[in-house]
Amino acid sequence: MTDAGQLHDKPLRVAIAGLGTVGTGVIRLLRENAALIEARAGVPIAITAVSARDRSRDRGVDISHIAWEDDMTAMAARDDVDVVVELVGGSDGPALVLARQALGRGKSFVTANKAMVAMHGMELAEAAEAGNAALKFEAAVAGGIPVVKGLREGAAANRIERIYGILNGTCNYILSAMESTGADFAETLQEAQALGYAEADPAFDIDGVDAAHKLAILAAIGFGSRIDFSAVACTGIAAVRAADIAQADVLGYVIRLIGMADMLDGEPGAVGEAKLLQRVRPCLVHKRHPLAHVTGPTNAVVAEGNFSGRLLFQGAGAGDGPTASAVVADLIDLARGDTYSPFSVPTRAMEAVPAADPGGRMGRTYLRFTVTDRPGVLAEIAAAMRDAGVSIESLNQPALSENAGGEALVALVTHEGEERSVTRALELLEGSDSLTGPPLVMPILKDRG
Amino acid sequence: MTDAGQLHDKPLRVAIAGLGTVGTGVIRLLRENAALIEARAGVPIAITAVSARDRSRDRGVDISHIAWEDDMTAMAARDDVDVVVELVGGSDGPALVLARQALGRGKSFVTANKAMVAMHGMELAEAAEAGNAALKFEAAVAGGIPVVKGLREGAAANRIERIYGILNGTCNYILSAMESTGADFAETLQEAQALGYAEADPAFDIDGVDAAHKLAILAAIGFGSRIDFSAVACTGIAAVRAADIAQADVLGYVIRLIGMADMLDGEPGAVGEAKLLQRVRPCLVHKRHPLAHVTGPTNAVVAEGNFSGRLLFQGAGAGDGPTASAVVADLIDLARGDTYSPFSVPTRAMEAVPAADPGGRMGRTYLRFTVTDRPGVLAEIAAAMRDAGVSIESLNQPALSENAGGEALVALVTHEGEERSVTRALELLEGSDSLTGPPLVMPILKDRG
Repeated sequence: MTDAGQLHDKPLRVAIAGLGTVGTGVIRLLRENAALIEARAGVPIAITAVSARDRSRDRGVDISHIAWEDDMTAMAARDDVDVVVELVGGSDGPALVLARQALGRGKSFVTANKAMVAMHGMELAEAAEAGNAALKFEAAVAGGIPVVKGLREGAAANRIERIYGILNGTCNYILSAMESTGADFAETLQEAQALGYAEADPAFDIDGVDAAHKLAILAAIGFGSRIDFSAVACTGIAAVRAADIAQADVLGYVIRLIGMADMLDGEPGAVGEAKLLQRVRPCLVHKRHPLAHVTGPTNAVVAEGNFSGRLLFQGAGAGDGPTASAVVADLIDLARGDTYSPFSVPTRAMEAVPAADPGGRMGRTYLRFTVTDRPGVLAEIAAAMRDAGVSIESLNQPALSENAGGEALVALVTHEGEERSVTRALELLEGSDSLTGPPLVMPILKDRG
Repeated sequence: MTDAGQLHDKPLRVAIAGLGTVGTGVIRLLRENAALIEARAGVPIAITAVSARDRSRDRGVDISHIAWEDDMTAMAARDDVDVVVELVGGSDGPALVLARQALGRGKSFVTANKAMVAMHGMELAEAAEAGNAALKFEAAVAGGIPVVKGLREGAAANRIERIYGILNGTCNYILSAMESTGADFAETLQEAQALGYAEADPAFDIDGVDAAHKLAILAAIGFGSRIDFSAVACTGIAAVRAADIAQADVLGYVIRLIGMADMLDGEPGAVGEAKLLQRVRPCLVHKRHPLAHVTGPTNAVVAEGNFSGRLLFQGAGAGDGPTASAVVADLIDLARGDTYSPFSVPTRAMEAVPAADPGGRMGRTYLRFTVTDRPGVLAEIAAAMRDAGVSIESLNQPALSENAGGEALVALVTHEGEERSVTRALELLEGSDSLTGPPLVMPILKDRG
């Protein structure tokens, strides 16, 4: 009897670069679940070498019997290593050197490094193809959620029309905490930092860069387009105020930081070149939409396929356990013989798709102005909207909880229209001394299409 | 340069048995998305033979150039077929004959047939291993949602502790429609039938059998236990009344038909043999739980892994498009070279796990009695609970919207306790002339663990 579950006899030999919480999590996982992993992978998965900055640090796992390399790039040259796992981080530097050397020697490479994959993923995928090796990065997107697999394989039969989701746990923790407490952004960020949900330097998360890395990777897999991280238009959550969340609530929405990638087939009504719209923005999400119920540091990704319809993948977006789960899933795939194209199609089939002009996007928009509290301001804003051809669906003056000091808020929701009209209206208002600060502009997430 | 995306040169040749809406959906999908499927699969996927009952029927797709077999089992013998796709249905009969013949000849077999996989999956997996062929059935569970893949591969690094979810779209449509309209079951079922969400003979869905098939398959993949469909304890939704949904709402819950599989490690406090609890039951689901927001014919599956934490997969549970998407995802996997164990581990590693006694389950329970509207009934129920050692958390008499005719309802929620105590209390009440009908018993879904 041929056993389909046992393709190899020898263990899969793994080197791990980086022994922070994720690296030690991978070691713990491979030990704690060793028996079931061997049954599922068909072979044992053995750690044969490790590398990290400090050899002597107590990590709570015994690594005394594993070969140690002070120079992590040396692991790429070891004969007793089949796969290099990189958990060091950083888009360039040692992680990238290690990736190039491992793939260049025909060793498969598994990474949780979203920045590196977003910026150098095309080069690394080409190196993997050239070396007949695998490049895998499930842990780089949405932590423990198998969404790279879900897109690359589960939804592979579909033309993907749209990918969007909650891709940053820190922002989602902050926004949903603001929602439940009514507190403002700065205060909630401090709490998130105290609880370990936000870094001491939170810019990378709250400015949306981390979500943008993940989005660029997902877009490449879903659309077969070459990764184009530089084209992701990114707006963070720091400008969202408690009053915006309260106003959204009144309107039937919550606010979430959403990464959205849409493949647009030219201008409406015309047959044009396909263009890719990628952006990370705080958005209004209707309370009936599943993403509205994603709270805390959870991540969730929606992919809309032309046959599957809407698929949702949800789970822990970070943490050593979930990230280790994704890393080891990649290792099990490798042991089972998966060496298929990292981005679902061979790199030569991946097209460079030009970035779409977001001005052409049709949709509804939430706008919030901070204004001087005096008569005539509403009329000025309404006139700018009219002159730019923006149709107003509702206009409100939400109360400010804090001491307003002569400042007032104006929140409005537009009817469906081109985004460039909203931009034009804001240009008309630029320099007005009625406005005390830059307006906050948030798209209203469409349920579909 | 070796192209990792192109393992084969020749097309993957597929025969399709059954040309109902799903079968024609697969043909449409393979044509409409042919270019992207070839890019992703590495080879074209070609339909070389089809079989159905009626050759002349107009199906809206041209099959004139595809070989026709009147006897579907003949497709297993064709030299121009690599994979047989079975979309006929039925746990036994021609579908099973075809599966045995295809696998017996070393041809891979892809099916959407949940009943057959639930009842004969072990035999078929063994045949696949013996023939060095693949058996794949993503479409058999939860329509277009890649949850078989999610469990078999995405969560493969984890010891799965619990799998549960909404596995039947008909029941979920009915329950969520009852929720939004306040209508009773019979009326809502009729509407669902008129809208095509329920079959003319709905027993298979509303009694929970369909969900039980899917649950038994998921449990086998997640736990590595031999499929044991006969051990799934099944209760349908026909006894759920509008008043139950209203009462659940007051308590902060919605009602969903949940399939649940738990691997129990012996009695609490004792080291015992692992036992498997599998059941399909209408349950109270807290409004903060993601499954509470799954409405309409959508399916959603939760898997809890010891490292990944809670993973959720959600999407369309049925329909020709989503089901075709899952079938073709399996075909693309085959083209990419995936012939790994159907249930994640080789059949010889799958253990026969004895069924757990549900009486030992710790949890809270919702009980609803229909009683004669007279004094003393509440006291009788409360006494039975006391005598059986059931601690009552709340007790209500929900109003009946319909003409009650001397009938009243009593709804109670227990504190956390062993289910066997609730069963004992119901035994004490058996034969009481205060009760006008059998009580409805619904577990309250635990958030975790």
